[in-house]
Amino acid sequence: MLIQLEKNCTNSHLKSIVEKLTNAGYKVTRVNTFNQEYLVCIGKTEVDIRIIGNQPGVKDVHIVTDPNPLVSRQWKVKDTEIDLGNGIKISRDDFTIVAGPCAIESEEQVITIVEFLKQQGIQLMRGGIFKPRSSPYSFRGLGIDGLKLFSNHCKANSIKVVTEVMQVSQIDEMYPYTDIFQVGTRNMQNFNLLDALGKVDKPVLLKRGMSATLSELLSSAEYIFSSGNEKIILCERGIRTFEKEYRNTLDLNAIPYLKDKSHLPVFCDPSHGVGVRDYVENMALASVMAGADGVLLEIHKTPEKALSDGHQTLNFDESKKAFKNIRQLVELRKNLVY
Amino acid sequence: MLIQLEKNCTNSHLKSIVEKLTNAGYKVTRVNTFNQEYLVCIGKTEVDIRIIGNQPGVKDVHIVTDPNPLVSRQWKVKDTEIDLGNGIKISRDDFTIVAGPCAIESEEQVITIVEFLKQQGIQLMRGGIFKPRSSPYSFRGLGIDGLKLFSNHCKANSIKVVTEVMQVSQIDEMYPYTDIFQVGTRNMQNFNLLDALGKVDKPVLLKRGMSATLSELLSSAEYIFSSGNEKIILCERGIRTFEKEYRNTLDLNAIPYLKDKSHLPVFCDPSHGVGVRDYVENMALASVMAGADGVLLEIHKTPEKALSDGHQTLNFDESKKAFKNIRQLVELRKNLVY
Amino acid sequence: MLIQLEKNCTNSHLKSIVEKLTNAGYKVTRVNTFNQEYLVCIGKTEVDIRIIGNQPGVKDVHIVTDPNPLVSRQWKVKDTEIDLGNGIKISRDDFTIVAGPCAIESEEQVITIVEFLKQQGIQLMRGGIFKPRSSPYSFRGLGIDGLKLFSNHCKANSIKVVTEVMQVSQIDEMYPYTDIFQVGTRNMQNFNLLDALGKVDKPVLLKRGMSATLSELLSSAEYIFSSGNEKIILCERGIRTFEKEYRNTLDLNAIPYLKDKSHLPVFCDPSHGVGVRDYVENMALASVMAGADGVLLEIHKTPEKALSDGHQTLNFDESKKAFKNIRQLVELRKNLVY
Amino acid sequence: MLIQLEKNCTNSHLKSIVEKLTNAGYKVTRVNTFNQEYLVCIGKTEVDIRIIGNQPGVKDVHIVTDPNPLVSRQWKVKDTEIDLGNGIKISRDDFTIVAGPCAIESEEQVITIVEFLKQQGIQLMRGGIFKPRSSPYSFRGLGIDGLKLFSNHCKANSIKVVTEVMQVSQIDEMYPYTDIFQVGTRNMQNFNLLDALGKVDKPVLLKRGMSATLSELLSSAEYIFSSGNEKIILCERGIRTFEKEYRNTLDLNAIPYLKDKSHLPVFCDPSHGVGVRDYVENMALASVMAGADGVLLEIHKTPEKALSDGHQTLNFDESKKAFKNIRQLVELRKNLVY
Repeated sequence: MLIQLEKNCTNSHLKSIVEKLTNAGYKVTRVNTFNQEYLVCIGKTEVDIRIIGNQPGVKDVHIVTDPNPLVSRQWKVKDTEIDLGNGIKISRDDFTIVAGPCAIESEEQVITIVEFLKQQGIQLMRGGIFKPRSSPYSFRGLGIDGLKLFSNHCKANSIKVVTEVMQVSQIDEMYPYTDIFQVGTRNMQNFNLLDALGKVDKPVLLKRGMSATLSELLSSAEYIFSSGNEKIILCERGIRTFEKEYRNTLDLNAIPYLKDKSHLPVFCDPSHGVGVRDYVENMALASVMAGADGVLLEIHKTPEKALSDGHQTLNFDESKKAFKNIRQLVELRKNLVY
Repeated sequence: MLIQLEKNCTNSHLKSIVEKLTNAGYKVTRVNTFNQEYLVCIGKTEVDIRIIGNQPGVKDVHIVTDPNPLVSRQWKVKDTEIDLGNGIKISRDDFTIVAGPCAIESEEQVITIVEFLKQQGIQLMRGGIFKPRSSPYSFRGLGIDGLKLFSNHCKANSIKVVTEVMQVSQIDEMYPYTDIFQVGTRNMQNFNLLDALGKVDKPVLLKRGMSATLSELLSSAEYIFSSGNEKIILCERGIRTFEKEYRNTLDLNAIPYLKDKSHLPVFCDPSHGVGVRDYVENMALASVMAGADGVLLEIHKTPEKALSDGHQTLNFDESKKAFKNIRQLVELRKNLVY
Repeated sequence: MLIQLEKNCTNSHLKSIVEKLTNAGYKVTRVNTFNQEYLVCIGKTEVDIRIIGNQPGVKDVHIVTDPNPLVSRQWKVKDTEIDLGNGIKISRDDFTIVAGPCAIESEEQVITIVEFLKQQGIQLMRGGIFKPRSSPYSFRGLGIDGLKLFSNHCKANSIKVVTEVMQVSQIDEMYPYTDIFQVGTRNMQNFNLLDALGKVDKPVLLKRGMSATLSELLSSAEYIFSSGNEKIILCERGIRTFEKEYRNTLDLNAIPYLKDKSHLPVFCDPSHGVGVRDYVENMALASVMAGADGVLLEIHKTPEKALSDGHQTLNFDESKKAFKNIRQLVELRKNLVY
Repeated sequence: MLIQLEKNCTNSHLKSIVEKLTNAGYKVTRVNTFNQEYLVCIGKTEVDIRIIGNQPGVKDVHIVTDPNPLVSRQWKVKDTEIDLGNGIKISRDDFTIVAGPCAIESEEQVITIVEFLKQQGIQLMRGGIFKPRSSPYSFRGLGIDGLKLFSNHCKANSIKVVTEVMQVSQIDEMYPYTDIFQVGTRNMQNFNLLDALGKVDKPVLLKRGMSATLSELLSSAEYIFSSGNEKIILCERGIRTFEKEYRNTLDLNAIPYLKDKSHLPVFCDPSHGVGVRDYVENMALASVMAGADGVLLEIHKTPEKALSDGHQTLNFDESKKAFKNIRQLVELRKNLVY
């Protein structure tokens, strides 16, 4: 059961509601987000929701049986939209394209890509400044200085910055320069990081762990929401299977499932997902029809010279074609008897 | 290396060519299909292909490094099209929709579905008469009598019959009533069955094993081709992963990969692939954009009453909507800068 | 529910029993094995088993809830033992070592290995004469002539022959020369083959499909049993995972699970399972402690020269050491407070 | 290439060595552990190692081609042993048994288990105080206060404390009360945590990620080593597969592989690995024969009442039997012609 509280719910009202619920056998968790206050009630007991609904301080009561109630569509039938300012909004109709290099490598690289994105009308740029690398001897990113120059050029061009945060201690220093905090696949169950991002008033792009079940992905989103932040984007980015012909196996089945079970926006990362440059556009288009609200694309002026992930990165010509086709397809999607 | 022989290549010419190749260190396999004759030459040696090309009896020579040369796109850049007669053709532009029940259950069921397909302009019907079931106590299909009535009603309406063959001994009795022989996921590496289907002059729809690599799928297709039958359709139908929210994990990455590596048409079976009725249309549409040449859809007048697989089967209203959307999308696909 | 019938159960008694069960809502399957007759009753209804037990013709009645009742331990608590004649028995205490080459390659090879096995006291020899190969261009085995020479030398030395059957039509020609019919991983769900092996009065070694669940393995065993043959050996041989450092991932968890759920003997094939020569002995020893009743080991005088699978094959010195260690461990196992 | 430096290697010697290597095309990383100083040289160039070996300041030079050179057996053939003080040592011959509850729940629970372990001669106790839980609403552990009472009772009985650290900021407060820092499966690629644990002079037990490749596990160990801490224990704990009959699939193949490739000790966690109480002892014994240096066992006085993981936890009688059998088996292992 999920209870939305009135803004002006007094402490004594709250106490009385919680008492009623606890007596009825529920374990009650109080959740206070940047938007509003909730009570998450876990338990198998049955209670007449009208009685709860009539308590002073209660705005609405919902029967939610999902184990992750806050992110469930059972109480919130409409898609969550996220406003990024400057007229940029994450929503199904706006379909979001996030593009950029795997890693921020130099100011020159940033300038070139920002200019290209501007020209193409792309409003969000991705780029790693802390790179999680399997080997300690690989390039680990430019760090906070890279983020500053990344952010400078984006701000000057009204482009939003999407970049990965790897640990709690980085959040504060990254905050002024970041529009969307990305949680990478290896950190999907870094629960301390999720808790900390729940205290931040900026959106979080949560990537599915490379062998995480979808139920676990939703639980990780529930961590962030229950810590206070409702602006969460789920992202499918490929899972591990026995197949060796591509880097990962992009699991597009996840998209209709997540859209069905949760009100959160769902993105897709075909670049990491299939990991083969020639197949990225096809998989991006497929993800649109699977029902995604946005895609992340790795692009680079000269993928061959990229410091990481060049084999899955589109060059500018390929990117242009992909953007154009995606946009045409999104238009068609609006007109389908869906 | 792959050599196409002239129709009129004499035995003595052939002997001389094979001798040259054997001396050069190749293992030569002679392949005689319903279309033409080939020599498959396996080996790491280098030979001047112009010398081979100039031999009498040789039509063309191709350098093919793929381990499954006959099904490779390296020598045959154009997509293979398959003519089913009555103006029905399997090709990228025609996009094939195959629809029908999981299992043929009764004459009444066949009549109802055939009528619906006719009305909807669907030209191929699927339906199992030998059902591979995990448990020996499950319904195993109506057998050859079921096929006869299935075939009768289809023929009367110019609809082609697609049905699964499970063992070599069934091929002959099924032949008069079958237009496309389906090889199921559990038989993808039933090599005796593949060899036997290579001797048949009707198309084979080869489903990917539920944990087969794509390289193994291509090898299985190579079995059929090298035994004589060039009419092969590859079909992605979902793989096994750790995810429990859907029956299988439809692997759409397979589609651009297979289209890239092979000249054979590639179908997709979203019904088995995701196995959840509500997500089937989305995955069907996604497979179109991934590049499929056709889809298989499980449909039934009353899925709730189907003897098998009802939970992944569309009813007639859902089917109509799916057909319509797929067709619109295929039209768009033709116009994309693809 | 599982009913064992008396040998002398008359037709009229049988009819009356089946009628009672059918009226009670069960789906009844009559199973007639080389040993005895059963009725497999599937259904959710409850019936007083004493009433059934008192019917004339009924020997015993067992409540069995497993979906594969015949192979379940719920009605047969004691391990099934299989007598191969000549004092050779498959049973937990006897622990069976099956050794031999991947493929029978020549008479000379057979003679060398038979001699070595004789010397080492090994009583069962494995060796493929029909080889299922991914590629149609690979060595596919010596066929029935290979089996004849394999069998001759084994018989002369009281060694039992274990070899793979790939299709129904091979059973009859193989029968005189085969002591245990092996069903390979690719055929675990070749249901026609399973049905046919149910009619044979020789043991079947059923290998787990490379991505089969254990429940499916038990269902495949149920096919054989319900077709008439109770002499079944289950065999774990490695599954497919994302790990690339070994050929397959030998799943030893399967062994305690299968021993727990089924009364059938359970073997392990570490050679295919891990597929790396240096790790085979360790995995064989581990399988003993996991609870296996036997192991299959690939051995060859000169693995480097083997026509297939050399990289996972032990030479004679390695084999000797492995046999010795396995035997010591089996002795210890008998003394553990298990 | 890996270079061990002399303790008294001067800065000018170091500079000269690094210059030589850089000029030869190597990327050189300087590693300073609690034990000694190394230079890790990555690159494909060839250099006469005798010339490097003769440089002043160089103690030894090793050709190491493994991508994770510091943890590789290529330069350190002997097993790494870890001395925990009080005569407790992690080494193959000592075979380590770590036992304890999934989570520390109360002082009473700790007292009961410590007493039992003492009685059984077990010298290391495991127990979680920060519990990584999929759902934010599950019990997350007693935190640092739980650790203090856990540590008090262990110290008083000369038992070593093994417990999981979840984030960098916890290390300092945990340090006085922890003997071995465990990194859980979800944090195997939390690179910041690995870096931080490299600065700590206490052993780290690094669990394999639930879908991590073994190469990634070794890379994560390399992170810790290259940050300064050589005391690392690798731990196999089960991977994700399609099988649903057990919680995870314990991958015992990993043990001979890791022992082959790395000099680090390798533990096994059969409790999480198979996740079914009845199969834990078998898998523990199997892991001994696979070559493990130690096992982790979840035990509880009353598993049925445990706050987490009760279904995979042994009670005291089962534990006693397991300890006894493991010890007998370890003795046998010493005598095998291994």
